[in-house]
Amino acid sequence: MDFARLDHDRKRRTGFPEVIFCEGKPDEFLVDIYKKMYEREGQVFGTRASEHQYEIVKAALPEASYDKVSRILKVVSTDYKKPELIGEIAVVTAGTADIPVAEEAAQTAEYFGSKVNRVFDVGVSGIHRLLSNVDVLNSANCVVAVAGMEGALASVVGGLVKVPVIAVPTSVGYGANMGGISALLTMINSCANGISVVNIDNGYGAGYIATQINRLAVGYKDEE
Amino acid sequence: MDFARLDHDRKRRTGFPEVIFCEGKPDEFLVDIYKKMYEREGQVFGTRASEHQYEIVKAALPEASYDKVSRILKVVSTDYKKPELIGEIAVVTAGTADIPVAEEAAQTAEYFGSKVNRVFDVGVSGIHRLLSNVDVLNSANCVVAVAGMEGALASVVGGLVKVPVIAVPTSVGYGANMGGISALLTMINSCANGISVVNIDNGYGAGYIATQINRLAVGYKDEE
Amino acid sequence: MDFARLDHDRKRRTGFPEVIFCEGKPDEFLVDIYKKMYEREGQVFGTRASEHQYEIVKAALPEASYDKVSRILKVVSTDYKKPELIGEIAVVTAGTADIPVAEEAAQTAEYFGSKVNRVFDVGVSGIHRLLSNVDVLNSANCVVAVAGMEGALASVVGGLVKVPVIAVPTSVGYGANMGGISALLTMINSCANGISVVNIDNGYGAGYIATQINRLAVGYKDEE
Amino acid sequence: MDFARLDHDRKRRTGFPEVIFCEGKPDEFLVDIYKKMYEREGQVFGTRASEHQYEIVKAALPEASYDKVSRILKVVSTDYKKPELIGEIAVVTAGTADIPVAEEAAQTAEYFGSKVNRVFDVGVSGIHRLLSNVDVLNSANCVVAVAGMEGALASVVGGLVKVPVIAVPTSVGYGANMGGISALLTMINSCANGISVVNIDNGYGAGYIATQINRLAVGYKDEE
Amino acid sequence: MDFARLDHDRKRRTGFPEVIFCEGKPDEFLVDIYKKMYEREGQVFGTRASEHQYEIVKAALPEASYDKVSRILKVVSTDYKKPELIGEIAVVTAGTADIPVAEEAAQTAEYFGSKVNRVFDVGVSGIHRLLSNVDVLNSANCVVAVAGMEGALASVVGGLVKVPVIAVPTSVGYGANMGGISALLTMINSCANGISVVNIDNGYGAGYIATQINRLAVGYKDEE
Amino acid sequence: MDFARLDHDRKRRTGFPEVIFCEGKPDEFLVDIYKKMYEREGQVFGTRASEHQYEIVKAALPEASYDKVSRILKVVSTDYKKPELIGEIAVVTAGTADIPVAEEAAQTAEYFGSKVNRVFDVGVSGIHRLLSNVDVLNSANCVVAVAGMEGALASVVGGLVKVPVIAVPTSVGYGANMGGISALLTMINSCANGISVVNIDNGYGAGYIATQINRLAVGYKDEE
Amino acid sequence: MDFARLDHDRKRRTGFPEVIFCEGKPDEFLVDIYKKMYEREGQVFGTRASEHQYEIVKAALPEASYDKVSRILKVVSTDYKKPELIGEIAVVTAGTADIPVAEEAAQTAEYFGSKVNRVFDVGVSGIHRLLSNVDVLNSANCVVAVAGMEGALASVVGGLVKVPVIAVPTSVGYGANMGGISALLTMINSCANGISVVNIDNGYGAGYIATQINRLAVGYKDEE
Amino acid sequence: MDFARLDHDRKRRTGFPEVIFCEGKPDEFLVDIYKKMYEREGQVFGTRASEHQYEIVKAALPEASYDKVSRILKVVSTDYKKPELIGEIAVVTAGTADIPVAEEAAQTAEYFGSKVNRVFDVGVSGIHRLLSNVDVLNSANCVVAVAGMEGALASVVGGLVKVPVIAVPTSVGYGANMGGISALLTMINSCANGISVVNIDNGYGAGYIATQINRLAVGYKDEE
Repeated sequence: MDFARLDHDRKRRTGFPEVIFCEGKPDEFLVDIYKKMYEREGQVFGTRASEHQYEIVKAALPEASYDKVSRILKVVSTDYKKPELIGEIAVVTAGTADIPVAEEAAQTAEYFGSKVNRVFDVGVSGIHRLLSNVDVLNSANCVVAVAGMEGALASVVGGLVKVPVIAVPTSVGYGANMGGISALLTMINSCANGISVVNIDNGYGAGYIATQINRLAVGYKDEE
Repeated sequence: MDFARLDHDRKRRTGFPEVIFCEGKPDEFLVDIYKKMYEREGQVFGTRASEHQYEIVKAALPEASYDKVSRILKVVSTDYKKPELIGEIAVVTAGTADIPVAEEAAQTAEYFGSKVNRVFDVGVSGIHRLLSNVDVLNSANCVVAVAGMEGALASVVGGLVKVPVIAVPTSVGYGANMGGISALLTMINSCANGISVVNIDNGYGAGYIATQINRLAVGYKDEE
Repeated sequence: MDFARLDHDRKRRTGFPEVIFCEGKPDEFLVDIYKKMYEREGQVFGTRASEHQYEIVKAALPEASYDKVSRILKVVSTDYKKPELIGEIAVVTAGTADIPVAEEAAQTAEYFGSKVNRVFDVGVSGIHRLLSNVDVLNSANCVVAVAGMEGALASVVGGLVKVPVIAVPTSVGYGANMGGISALLTMINSCANGISVVNIDNGYGAGYIATQINRLAVGYKDEE
Repeated sequence: MDFARLDHDRKRRTGFPEVIFCEGKPDEFLVDIYKKMYEREGQVFGTRASEHQYEIVKAALPEASYDKVSRILKVVSTDYKKPELIGEIAVVTAGTADIPVAEEAAQTAEYFGSKVNRVFDVGVSGIHRLLSNVDVLNSANCVVAVAGMEGALASVVGGLVKVPVIAVPTSVGYGANMGGISALLTMINSCANGISVVNIDNGYGAGYIATQINRLAVGYKDEE
Repeated sequence: MDFARLDHDRKRRTGFPEVIFCEGKPDEFLVDIYKKMYEREGQVFGTRASEHQYEIVKAALPEASYDKVSRILKVVSTDYKKPELIGEIAVVTAGTADIPVAEEAAQTAEYFGSKVNRVFDVGVSGIHRLLSNVDVLNSANCVVAVAGMEGALASVVGGLVKVPVIAVPTSVGYGANMGGISALLTMINSCANGISVVNIDNGYGAGYIATQINRLAVGYKDEE
Repeated sequence: MDFARLDHDRKRRTGFPEVIFCEGKPDEFLVDIYKKMYEREGQVFGTRASEHQYEIVKAALPEASYDKVSRILKVVSTDYKKPELIGEIAVVTAGTADIPVAEEAAQTAEYFGSKVNRVFDVGVSGIHRLLSNVDVLNSANCVVAVAGMEGALASVVGGLVKVPVIAVPTSVGYGANMGGISALLTMINSCANGISVVNIDNGYGAGYIATQINRLAVGYKDEE
Repeated sequence: MDFARLDHDRKRRTGFPEVIFCEGKPDEFLVDIYKKMYEREGQVFGTRASEHQYEIVKAALPEASYDKVSRILKVVSTDYKKPELIGEIAVVTAGTADIPVAEEAAQTAEYFGSKVNRVFDVGVSGIHRLLSNVDVLNSANCVVAVAGMEGALASVVGGLVKVPVIAVPTSVGYGANMGGISALLTMINSCANGISVVNIDNGYGAGYIATQINRLAVGYKDEE
Repeated sequence: MDFARLDHDRKRRTGFPEVIFCEGKPDEFLVDIYKKMYEREGQVFGTRASEHQYEIVKAALPEASYDKVSRILKVVSTDYKKPELIGEIAVVTAGTADIPVAEEAAQTAEYFGSKVNRVFDVGVSGIHRLLSNVDVLNSANCVVAVAGMEGALASVVGGLVKVPVIAVPTSVGYGANMGGISALLTMINSCANGISVVNIDNGYGAGYIATQINRLAVGYKDEE
């Protein structure tokens, strides 16, 4: 693979293994990368994979599995022993259309070893749905708030909890939502405290940060 | 006044008298307009007036009065008999910094004959403040929701009431609020129903529309 | 349906039943939601449906009907008795290309029980077409003004009527229309009073608000 | 003047003498330029001049005169014989706040030898004011339409006349007018034909083009 | 045709017949409109037509003809006698990719009775190509300058001619051209005089205005 | 204080006391709020205060102190016993001009009880300055990265550490930095993991979140 | 070819032959242009070609060759003798997804006679990968830095080398990357010196400029 | 100076000494930095200095000198021996208002040891002024093209010369120039080759890069 420099040192520096962003990778490159990483690590985790990409990777690595909703394409060897999940993260969404991004966040966090509670479809236009779940939010070490359209969910959540809220704007919406820019601006300008924001539709990034915080909260140490 | 064409017909067509937008009007023009309208109508109502403008108008028309917060500059003759206020409008704000715009809305609606209930500083980061005022909102014929920063208030209100919500984004905020564009986008993209939006800081416009709705609700008829 | 939280309380809180936004919903989810709602309510109303979505819903619920222009996908049981339509709303468009959005508004208002008058293709470049319809506008309790390109229609209408104007910018146009942002800005910055704005192409939202106002004007009361 | 290259050839190439854009020019440069041009041409015409600039130019060239509204700073020698004005241009504005830009256009056209009709404060929110002036517009060879806020005036004018409409967006407005960008977009996206647009507040440019068209219409020939 | 209000009065008011903007019109509507107009006028002129639209119109009206480059779809009866072309317009482009928009402008002007000179592929990166055609530009009554990418052509042309320049930004380019917004801004901010601008890719609009000017220049009078 | 609803419940819900955003607050309001809060809590912490605001608060509450760089205006009673600082946060800046925002973050975190390490002026154009401080970053529970201009610092830091990075774009820069939007976009689009973003110049928000994370890392519990 | 004006003089003026931008060129035009240029020059170099374009050109000119990654479509006669490559240019990328743009730059520079060193996948989130290649960068006469997402690579490179850095933002990324605008802004606002920027994905432009600089550095002289 | 980390290594790494960006630096910091650098280097070069900053630096370091046009604030000891200027750079501007930015570029290049030719006020609206200076441009090793408004100058220059063109957009203009963004976009989208762009008003950056190129062209070597 002369086109890619594997960052062998990444796990030592950051505590996390490399993850593949599948979208737009040419077929040959993708299969090659999956094979190389699977050899070295015994498992591969990729995001934003298409069904076509699943098929070509599965042809090369039959252990491959694919989740249509989150678009995560994993390869885990049969003798791989899942780590016990630690701590607790809550992932909430405003609507059902935000679920794919939320699942990317949740499954990323689970892959990295965090326990996840899902609280979906609790948007602010029916505020009682969120309020009746405040206890779930407060038992988490970090809340991931996923919302498109006007993205107001993050602000309300931020005013209800003690822990950091990672806000994920989504591209869900139409017209003046400008592909998610509107929700992003809402979250960046939030009047509530404790909210920080990742890129539009970046469920993976939110799952990563939530795990960092969750690890700190449970006193997790790397084995190296 | 050869520079301005007074719209004598406006009251008949729209049911509302003309109002002066004072900001940026040169001194001589402004005084002239106030004098002409006062002669003809017996009262003048102007918005976005500065203290300096108050002084020059007061010099010409001693009945002039000025409200620092809303920046409304009124001239009402002493024998003018206030109309009885009809119906009910609720004006809510997210924060204290939104009050000037809210007062412009409230006092405009009152000038046009509507009764107004004020519910200020009930932003979504402390959601209980809003929830404990739901009854006030529900007794109104129209709710004016005034908010800057991320403007999430409108969405939560929209999900709680039966009546139309006029959302007023304000320029309150900093950084990526882009002078109120962020709050405007939030409100335009709201996931809640029943929300329509006016220009940034346009309290006057909201008070006008709220009165139109309020008049319809109480079966108000023009006298002409 | 563990992916969606039905808002059973919505009708009581807001006076309106839930409506399905079909665009982008996965096939299985959509059919499931239509079936659940049809069971519970005896009727379902969905917007922005594709012909494909119509086919799969019809396969499950033969009472389904679809309007190509407005893209509304309804299911109404044969023994459902239409409510009498109350009050009056006017829906006007600038051009013929704005009709799909206008029909979404009109049919939404009709579904919610409002009588609707349609006045299409009366854009301001041929102003006499609008002026000859002023009486129709003035007999309504609310005017919905639908326009793309530069969206000037709303301002002219606003200066002609006593009732609130709900302005709906459309994505009709090309080049610097930026997918409807241009028309949205025009309407938000209108020099006329009595105009409030909803999202680009949001006919549904306009039909909803127009009905809220229409109900207030005729003294409509919920039965519960 | 080693900092500026006078374009001696301009009159021959374009038919128009050079004009000074005063805004932002340092004091010494400005006076120097006025003096050089006055020597060579016997008259100087500058736009966007401040009162301070008027004072320093007047100190050097006592023939200088200044118009506060249009901000035009002229120097014309006492023995200069005004050319007879030819043809006809109409300059219309939406509001009184647009008059400074309109006067820049009108006085520029007059300086270049065109006869100008002014029709001010005929914005579309009171459409009868414009309609009662259609004859004035139709007798002109070119209409300059000046409007801020949502700038809808240009579209209505475009649908009423046979001659080209030069649309001038102004920065008049607030909030989402974005310094005039909103009016510019409205005019560029106009549904009416025959409309072309110049920069925000560019009255000078509109007066120049209107004169080009007016000259063509009357068969004007340069003397050279 | 209850969906469209034909503007019978347009020719009298503006001097130009109605033209069909084909893009996005549903098949049945389009054929219907072509048939109705052909009946009434004996000729129909449509812009932005697809090949599919050509086929369905031709099936109904065999006299239909289509130009692939300009995408103009005309129907002219065999006994229609072309008017003699009057005056002169120059249409220049920066590159070959701008030709489709330029042809829309040129053929529109020709349809409206103007004589057109084409000067294509004379972009400013090889300035001698433009300079060697200055005489052609100067013999015209109006120059239409068509350019994408950075759109600098208009400014250079503006400095070389006496007549009005109608600048047409095109969507040609990539990256930061933002679909033509970059060229539009260039032209609006031009340092040269005599330039006014129409919408991105709006060849039709430029051909219309150029004809208005050309008619004024040759003293053309409507027959009615 | 009928203009403001004190959120008495906030400390219980979120674990943090209320903080005053001073910018733009009218003088009387500000002094009033400081006095009320000082009475109730024994200490007040305000951000973005001007020197003038310091003077009027000091006149009412002589214990007031002000830091010119961070613009923090504190009132702490003399018998107030500072809590012991816990855990560790690192605050890094790209340049010296970013220090005011960084100090707002650092002093906020200290006020909320966190120990802070400052690492200033380590921008990426001299990358060795940052690399020689990696150990300091790695000993922290959270890194706050403050940068204006192109904001590249956050990405490099994100690739070097195990803990969450709170990125704070600043308005430092000129031209195409668009008041900090450029740095905000850089940070939102970061290719590095573990980075989440707050509003432009929002040092306070970053200090708040960093403290939330720091508290989780040291197992901090509220006393109530 | 009456649609295109070949710039015969270009090589003399600028030192470089004409290059074909293939994207969007109609089939017949493209083949025609390739044939004409091949006849005259004995070689043709085209960028942004599709596989389809390769096929139709190859059908006409069997010597045609195509590189899928860079999308360069070359025709070189078999007796063409490649010039010796001179000097040295370094092309670096942040990620593997940036390679197509980088190859366009590298192969353009090679076509124009420059020696190129490729250093791919050295993004700043793993800074050691770049630092271990500083010697390669410093041996070049010019560095081309290609990066999408947040584009921070250019700033770090700029702080490490003596020679000019040509920064190429790419459209790689998603969400708030806005098609590459984010990376473009990052590079334009860079805190490092010696960085200038070309259009998004403009590998060709960077290869051209890098060759200009490389030629100057080795004292290259045109033969004419 | 504990607030700033002097980059002692910069000269060795990049070949250029540190330069002070004065704008916005607090008085004490600025004087301190000037003193420290003067001690160490014997000379200091600062850009964007105000007259006030000149006064306070002069009070501390009487050798200080200031140029009002370029706003450069230099301190050079009396026994400092200017290096001989090498090679040749051309700096061209579109208008006189662009001269301050051009002088910043020119004087920066001269400070770094380059010979500079100035060609001012040769904007494209009078193209002959530029064409009569082509020889000056062609004798340079690098051309710096400085232009505001629509910024078309860079494209024309790029088509006339063999050497790299560094394009500097300026904030000169009004209305839709958006503080220079318009000129920036023009230059980034240029149809001409050999053009790369720096930030708006960034004369310093252009002078730096031009010197890098000039040094390569003359075979300059650092002494260390």
